[in-house]
Amino acid sequence: MAEFSIGVDLGGTNLRAAAIDRDGNVLRKTSGGTKLSAGREAVIDDIVASIVKLRDRLGADGLVGAGIGVPGFIVIEKGLVVGSPNLPGFEDFPVRDEIESRLNAPVILENDANAAALGEKWMGAGRGVNDLVLLTLGTGIGGGVISGGKVLHGFVGMAGEVGHITVNPAGNPCGCGNRGCLEKHASATAVVATARMLGLGDQITSEGVYRLALKGNESAKRVFESMGSALGIALANLVNIFNFPLYLLSGGVLPAWDYFAPTMFRELETRSFTYKKTRTRIDKAILGNEAGLFGAAYLPLQAKDQAHK
Amino acid sequence: MAEFSIGVDLGGTNLRAAAIDRDGNVLRKTSGGTKLSAGREAVIDDIVASIVKLRDRLGADGLVGAGIGVPGFIVIEKGLVVGSPNLPGFEDFPVRDEIESRLNAPVILENDANAAALGEKWMGAGRGVNDLVLLTLGTGIGGGVISGGKVLHGFVGMAGEVGHITVNPAGNPCGCGNRGCLEKHASATAVVATARMLGLGDQITSEGVYRLALKGNESAKRVFESMGSALGIALANLVNIFNFPLYLLSGGVLPAWDYFAPTMFRELETRSFTYKKTRTRIDKAILGNEAGLFGAAYLPLQAKDQAHK
Repeated sequence: MAEFSIGVDLGGTNLRAAAIDRDGNVLRKTSGGTKLSAGREAVIDDIVASIVKLRDRLGADGLVGAGIGVPGFIVIEKGLVVGSPNLPGFEDFPVRDEIESRLNAPVILENDANAAALGEKWMGAGRGVNDLVLLTLGTGIGGGVISGGKVLHGFVGMAGEVGHITVNPAGNPCGCGNRGCLEKHASATAVVATARMLGLGDQITSEGVYRLALKGNESAKRVFESMGSALGIALANLVNIFNFPLYLLSGGVLPAWDYFAPTMFRELETRSFTYKKTRTRIDKAILGNEAGLFGAAYLPLQAKDQAHK
Repeated sequence: MAEFSIGVDLGGTNLRAAAIDRDGNVLRKTSGGTKLSAGREAVIDDIVASIVKLRDRLGADGLVGAGIGVPGFIVIEKGLVVGSPNLPGFEDFPVRDEIESRLNAPVILENDANAAALGEKWMGAGRGVNDLVLLTLGTGIGGGVISGGKVLHGFVGMAGEVGHITVNPAGNPCGCGNRGCLEKHASATAVVATARMLGLGDQITSEGVYRLALKGNESAKRVFESMGSALGIALANLVNIFNFPLYLLSGGVLPAWDYFAPTMFRELETRSFTYKKTRTRIDKAILGNEAGLFGAAYLPLQAKDQAHK
């Protein structure tokens, strides 16, 4: 029977899973609530249940394996989660081995942002590109680096923390201990904070700022100009460091592209010789929330292909 | 007979070459003047002559190939040099193929800073480490990234331009078009410029600033504190982006380590959560000017091993 893989995206409120074939066709999906705060056992039960549900419908024979995107740092070789306040009780527990033994199929754990980057590479805006960086502009800013077609992990799976690139050494304080982190100047949260400083109201949301910009509100436009500028500084650093052909942006702030992109590109032109001299593309990601599911599902397929090389 | 490889380092004034065996033993070296300004043919003749000289002494049978580190951007697959003002007439000329046909042995071109990073990985301070970044603090700041044991190139060989990481968006203007590039705040040239601003004299050199610091001169110490701070900001970005276990510093400013390292580490502690939470090592490179020769020599050996995998 045709091979398929199951991708799981463990989010803060929803646990989603999809069975996807080698051509990227989504065969079947499932989604349910999950409470990370219920602790490790409950979360693992939920993950296993969602995989089993899909597997039983499609037939265990075709299952290559399961990939699981989780909101934490992963020591890939060991299948361990480290340093993740969002995952109570997971620290140093052999999550992968536990799930693998219950499923009797190969399981790969991956950081959720890395999985999203891999998903865009496989079936999204990065199709056919082997080297790219994805930045997800949400409450914070996450990121994933794909190098040579594979996720760049770093030695404890913490690579791609692009939200903490310093864009201004004297900038806004960040929970990580730094000042001027990209995510304090270009996330949805930062958009709201800047809008409040500019007098757009204490109840304003990032969507609200966007709607005001659409109506021509000058302060709202300046919010996105400031955000684009911070993003451009960080992207210029990434372009200078990686010289990759593609950098993708995703997340809730993406609709405001027309308002933040001009200052973003201006900073890139000024701050990166490499950007000016090469055909570097900065573009929108296209898979949205599905990127993580695709990337997670791709992991076991990719691992199998490499083992057979 | 025992296998060996020849590494060539094409510098601004000297052309050096070394025959090195698989264990990293330098079998024989040669060095001569070269004038890049004499143009392409003269430079290629010099490169070929230095390789032939070593090969003829050691026996062509053992030669695995030659690696050549050049001060320019390389399109690796094509063996072309692009966008390198230091290499007149080389633009879009098939340098690798030309040398290969004259030698009748495999030739690999590499950027000199990338070759140095690979040399430190093979036989220097990065032995046994597969993922590292090398920053060379000289007139400018060059760098090379080793990922999974291999040079990270980017799509036109311009990866690793760490000297142009923005450490202060409103900082010193740089020839690349940016302001606040790392190399305008932490290279030997920057040390001299800062020292002059602090009244240490118009004729001061970076060694002179170092000697003053050794004597307890407070202004000289401040020069290195400022330099270390810029370096720490850039390193924090690299640590956040790569999560590699090792970052090496080399170049003429290295002796002043004790004067710039405290502020460098202070910035790292403040600006990188990943640095604080992991055993990330920032250390001195140990091969100095030899790093490029080792790295260049390693390239054909590494390529052969990979082809046989």
